Amino acid sequence: MMKLVVFRPPLLSFVRRAFISSSALKWEGGVSMVQGASRGIGLEFVRQLLEGNENGHVIATCRNPSGATGLHDLKKKFLDRLRILPLDITKENTIEAAATSVREHYGSLNLLINASGVLSIPDVLEPERTLSKLEKSSLLLAYEVNAVGPILVIKHMWPLLKLGGGSGTKRGFAIVASLSAKVGSIGDNRLGGWHSYRASKAALNQLTKTISVEFARKKDPIVCVLLHPGTVDTDLSRPFQRNVPENKLFTKEFSVQKLLNIVDNVKNSDNGKFFAWDGQEIPW
Amino acid sequence: MMKLVVFRPPLLSFVRRAFISSSALKWEGGVSMVQGASRGIGLEFVRQLLEGNENGHVIATCRNPSGATGLHDLKKKFLDRLRILPLDITKENTIEAAATSVREHYGSLNLLINASGVLSIPDVLEPERTLSKLEKSSLLLAYEVNAVGPILVIKHMWPLLKLGGGSGTKRGFAIVASLSAKVGSIGDNRLGGWHSYRASKAALNQLTKTISVEFARKKDPIVCVLLHPGTVDTDLSRPFQRNVPENKLFTKEFSVQKLLNIVDNVKNSDNGKFFAWDGQEIPW
Ligand SMILES: NC(=O)c1ccc[n+]([C@@H]2O[C@H](COP(=O)([O-])OP(=O)(O)OC[C@H]3O[C@@H](n4cnc5c(N)ncnc54)[C@H](OP(=O)(O)O)[C@@H]3O)[C@@H](O)[C@H]2O)c1
Ligand SMILES: NC(=O)c1ccc[n+]([C@@H]2O[C@H](COP(=O)([O-])OP(=O)(O)OC[C@H]3O[C@@H](n4cnc5c(N)ncnc54)[C@H](OP(=O)(O)O)[C@@H]3O)[C@@H](O)[C@H]2O)c1
Repeated sequence: MMKLVVFRPPLLSFVRRAFISSSALKWEGGVSMVQGASRGIGLEFVRQLLEGNENGHVIATCRNPSGATGLHDLKKKFLDRLRILPLDITKENTIEAAATSVREHYGSLNLLINASGVLSIPDVLEPERTLSKLEKSSLLLAYEVNAVGPILVIKHMWPLLKLGGGSGTKRGFAIVASLSAKVGSIGDNRLGGWHSYRASKAALNQLTKTISVEFARKKDPIVCVLLHPGTVDTDLSRPFQRNVPENKLFTKEFSVQKLLNIVDNVKNSDNGKFFAWDGQEIPW
Repeated sequence: MMKLVVFRPPLLSFVRRAFISSSALKWEGGVSMVQGASRGIGLEFVRQLLEGNENGHVIATCRNPSGATGLHDLKKKFLDRLRILPLDITKENTIEAAATSVREHYGSLNLLINASGVLSIPDVLEPERTLSKLEKSSLLLAYEVNAVGPILVIKHMWPLLKLGGGSGTKRGFAIVASLSAKVGSIGDNRLGGWHSYRASKAALNQLTKTISVEFARKKDPIVCVLLHPGTVDTDLSRPFQRNVPENKLFTKEFSVQKLLNIVDNVKNSDNGKFFAWDGQEIPW
């Protein structure tokens, strides 16, 4: 590929090199990053990305790599196509360090999936059932993890996504997909409760919409979308599954298959949109 | 009024007393609270509420009462109908203290207006023009002031609003009106930028919608709405007025007149809705 470039007319070759760095060209099959990959939906994204594309490279980030046994199992199988990096979404220096590491090793990114998220933490964060139990500390914690964190990851990966665009993939652009939640929809909010989680996801939606406008205006080859995975059988939903009808509780395998189907078919005009697992748009 | 109650059939009198406390009955004309009343739109709400209803009582809260010269000017004119209380929206103990003071003095509330808000603070908070300048500290500060604060005020005033309902007013319910902003609308976001402010107002919208569902389910006599005042000539908008056409820059007198018109005509079915100054609903 690099050799071909040498024989192109000088101007075209210059333009091409300006837009697609030589490092981006090295990664046929594309470079994907899954942030929040230790368990649940994030881990399943890593697995399906590796299994579904035999040339694809995946960077999996998590707070505590040494404890991420699911990722280590995948590493044994996909030795040279999987890289595990530490990243705690509440510590911006770890996000910057991950960006530096990705830049040095891969030079660019084609897909970023923000899969981290928090709904409850025993003795720390409890989804609220009434306004009278609303705590400032819960509101701030959920905001920091679910809204601020993913956007800071996009901020630091932006230059790499811009360089990557669709290079090495079948797409004409890079994709940023952040896991939101239908309960983050204001228009669809008919049950109330879960104040901290709902507010944080509504804010994530607004922040994603805001940056999608900037990417479009600057003609960056990046499309941002928000994804609702359905109610998925993971640690996050486990304490709240009692009233979920069995056929509405998805396996993570099913949900991620559906979500990757959306990612694979994203169009330029989908930039800034919010999709459920079945491809339906969710109202704000 | 208290005497009349004595002659009612016992059951009705009991029911009435259970719903409208005797203290609520004392305040013909109603008791309103304006939170964030030191300047701008909040101060103008206090003025128009006092001038527009010769029996109405108003509690004006602000961070620093001693420096609130506009409120002191009003106090001279409306001595016994205006009460100034300290309340810093970032300090929950000051919200609780204000609630205690209102309970002891008035016993109930009929209208709560959350008018506080922050867009920029020199050297501290700068509305973002690009993702690359987004700071975690700005996101958290705007969230704390614009989303968390108003909801904590509603949390602590909730029992007083429930007791007050529409007593002493022409309405059948109490009203909570929080100042949001059209730029907080996700669906209407076509310009991007102002990430921290936009996200905080979207979250305020989601939190307000969430509590409106609880109020309705519990049949509390309270209706919550969100208000967009237009672009209003205040300290908040001053640094950003350059590109605003003259006829789109409202005086605070005009804007508050319009907003009070909305408040005066709110219906039960408006609970949880988001209105612009002209009565148009704003998309989420
Ligand atoms: N499951 C559902 O039904 C459902 C429904 C709607 C939306 N979602 C969304 O889907 C996403 C994935 O959820 P899930 O069900 O897979 O949840 P999960 O099984 O609980 O996994 C959550 C993931 O987020 C990570 N995480 C939490 N805090 C973090 C931090 N500070 N820094 C880095 N990573 C952090 C966790 O890492 P550790 O292992 O280090 O804790 C874990 O990998 C979330 O955004 C969630 O809100 C899920
Ligand atoms: N002006 C506009 O064009 C416009 C447009 C859309 C929405 N809004 C919204 O309308 C509302 C009023 O804005 P404005 O134009 O009147 O702004 P303003 O003139 O800047 O006044 C802001 C008010 O908020 C108070 N405040 C700030 N932080 C506070 C805190 N921690 N605790 C208590 N009070 C605090 C300020 O009190 P101090 O005096 O103590 O600082 C001041 O009274 C805001 O929610 C704003 O977002 C305004």
